[in-house]
Amino acid sequence: MTGQNIFSISAERSAFEFFLKGEMWMKDNYALATRLRVRYSETDQMKIVYNANYLDWFEVARTELCRLWGKPYTEWESEGLMLPVVEAYCRYKHPARYDDEIELWSRVSELKCHSVRFEYRVLRAADKKLLAEGWTKHGCTDCEGRLYKKEHSFYLWMKSFISEERG
Amino acid sequence: MTGQNIFSISAERSAFEFFLKGEMWMKDNYALATRLRVRYSETDQMKIVYNANYLDWFEVARTELCRLWGKPYTEWESEGLMLPVVEAYCRYKHPARYDDEIELWSRVSELKCHSVRFEYRVLRAADKKLLAEGWTKHGCTDCEGRLYKKEHSFYLWMKSFISEERG
Amino acid sequence: MTGQNIFSISAERSAFEFFLKGEMWMKDNYALATRLRVRYSETDQMKIVYNANYLDWFEVARTELCRLWGKPYTEWESEGLMLPVVEAYCRYKHPARYDDEIELWSRVSELKCHSVRFEYRVLRAADKKLLAEGWTKHGCTDCEGRLYKKEHSFYLWMKSFISEERG
Amino acid sequence: MTGQNIFSISAERSAFEFFLKGEMWMKDNYALATRLRVRYSETDQMKIVYNANYLDWFEVARTELCRLWGKPYTEWESEGLMLPVVEAYCRYKHPARYDDEIELWSRVSELKCHSVRFEYRVLRAADKKLLAEGWTKHGCTDCEGRLYKKEHSFYLWMKSFISEERG
Repeated sequence: MTGQNIFSISAERSAFEFFLKGEMWMKDNYALATRLRVRYSETDQMKIVYNANYLDWFEVARTELCRLWGKPYTEWESEGLMLPVVEAYCRYKHPARYDDEIELWSRVSELKCHSVRFEYRVLRAADKKLLAEGWTKHGCTDCEGRLYKKEHSFYLWMKSFISEERG
Repeated sequence: MTGQNIFSISAERSAFEFFLKGEMWMKDNYALATRLRVRYSETDQMKIVYNANYLDWFEVARTELCRLWGKPYTEWESEGLMLPVVEAYCRYKHPARYDDEIELWSRVSELKCHSVRFEYRVLRAADKKLLAEGWTKHGCTDCEGRLYKKEHSFYLWMKSFISEERG
Repeated sequence: MTGQNIFSISAERSAFEFFLKGEMWMKDNYALATRLRVRYSETDQMKIVYNANYLDWFEVARTELCRLWGKPYTEWESEGLMLPVVEAYCRYKHPARYDDEIELWSRVSELKCHSVRFEYRVLRAADKKLLAEGWTKHGCTDCEGRLYKKEHSFYLWMKSFISEERG
Repeated sequence: MTGQNIFSISAERSAFEFFLKGEMWMKDNYALATRLRVRYSETDQMKIVYNANYLDWFEVARTELCRLWGKPYTEWESEGLMLPVVEAYCRYKHPARYDDEIELWSRVSELKCHSVRFEYRVLRAADKKLLAEGWTKHGCTDCEGRLYKKEHSFYLWMKSFISEERG
């Protein structure tokens, strides 16, 4: 446990310091958004993480990706942006189990004025095994739920990071 | 399963018809608020229902108790009443398991202008075994979160049912 | 609320009686698996049902579809069958809200010895509006997680219903 | 956000290094078990964290307390110890909101061969405001659910930390 903790902490520190240096832990344009530990409440009677909880993790991943990129989702929301989920997909390759340390990697794979698509990879931190991967598609709306038709601040902000990544 | 289904449906019908006749399924002033089936997602790796889910069921029970009494909680909420939970307690006696049919019984045990206390009993429908019991205490506030200091419509409405029960 | 309750109860009774008469509430081969009410705990701060909860409902739908077909999933599990989720997809069309009465419709769209695919429709009971639709793909394994390669009792049982539907 | 992240990381590092030095972040015998961020999925339509989720956090706190003390709960469970929840209580003082950074503090307030009681404090990391406090009581059983009647390794292990704290 000691080892895990030290590793976990240095890992987070590194990822964050890389970011401060204008870098990030990248792989196939995926950024390490965050790490978490599987909670007892997330398991089911098959002794594995229940399938729906991966969608909760996807939400954690996009929240932390925005934070890594410099502006938390809460700030965007307070400025009137909403990103309702319109589609979600997950492929389960290997089960996550209670107390596993999980790495959540995420990237933006598609960006339009009226929609954004996030992709996710769920890894077991101990051996970097890919446990699951998936994506969510979101509408980009104002606080009254109207889809944006023109470029808006969130779109431009996100676009800059994607080009960086692709560059 | 057939038997269970038939029973479950007649049970619900009876409970409801009793109510129409001005009666209710009562025991120690507890009313049968509703029945539900344990979901796979509610189990944990001990193969029993995870402890926090009982608080979700308590909320289902008070929602259905209000409906049985003739005015759904949604209507009260739309009129500006809020009942934030200030305390919650649960005692777990026997585990509920996946696909168990559960009976939720509830009563109001304490009513003041600024607070209300609900009590709950969680029974296994098949053998009426008491699986858990608990209570939640709520503040009674207006839509801006201010505690009521005088009698209000929800207080008077709820009071009438308690006196009936006690009568 | 009274109206809703009466309707809900007759609906369940009819669906069940239709089944007893060898029929079922069918539409495009979808059967009405069950109805449920949105719980307060299922909402998020957008005041709509959080996206991951639809996967919990999908699980409720396949559980109830098996029960309607005459053999609860618990019995299959006790006989050593396991149906781990390998893929899940959901398209969100319109939000479900607290206390909405929801209809869960389901069908089996693909059946092989080693896998089965369920499809789902989530309707608002009040106006039959389609709120979401999706599917889950499952492996068919024995209690040790080995995929079945030959026909097995669950496969044959499920096959009979599909042919009936298609017939 | 940057500040928060740096703070969060140093905080975790300090807490852990204090522990390595045989100390811990203590206050009234409570140890800082861990920090977490409120997930979007944990909010409800009152725009605050739903009451049942605090019990999930309590479980996270006792898991991390065991890890801080040097032996993860998973190891105890693999040795056949089980700690089923028999009672749970929570008092909600101030709401936690989406993306709040939360501190979970925990201590053991009662220890017997057949039972253990954990106490919890939920703080908002930004201003150390106490949002909620509660406790859970657990039975100490072997893998077959039999309550321990004599001293066992978990009991002795836990006892040593309590005396240290009290000392």
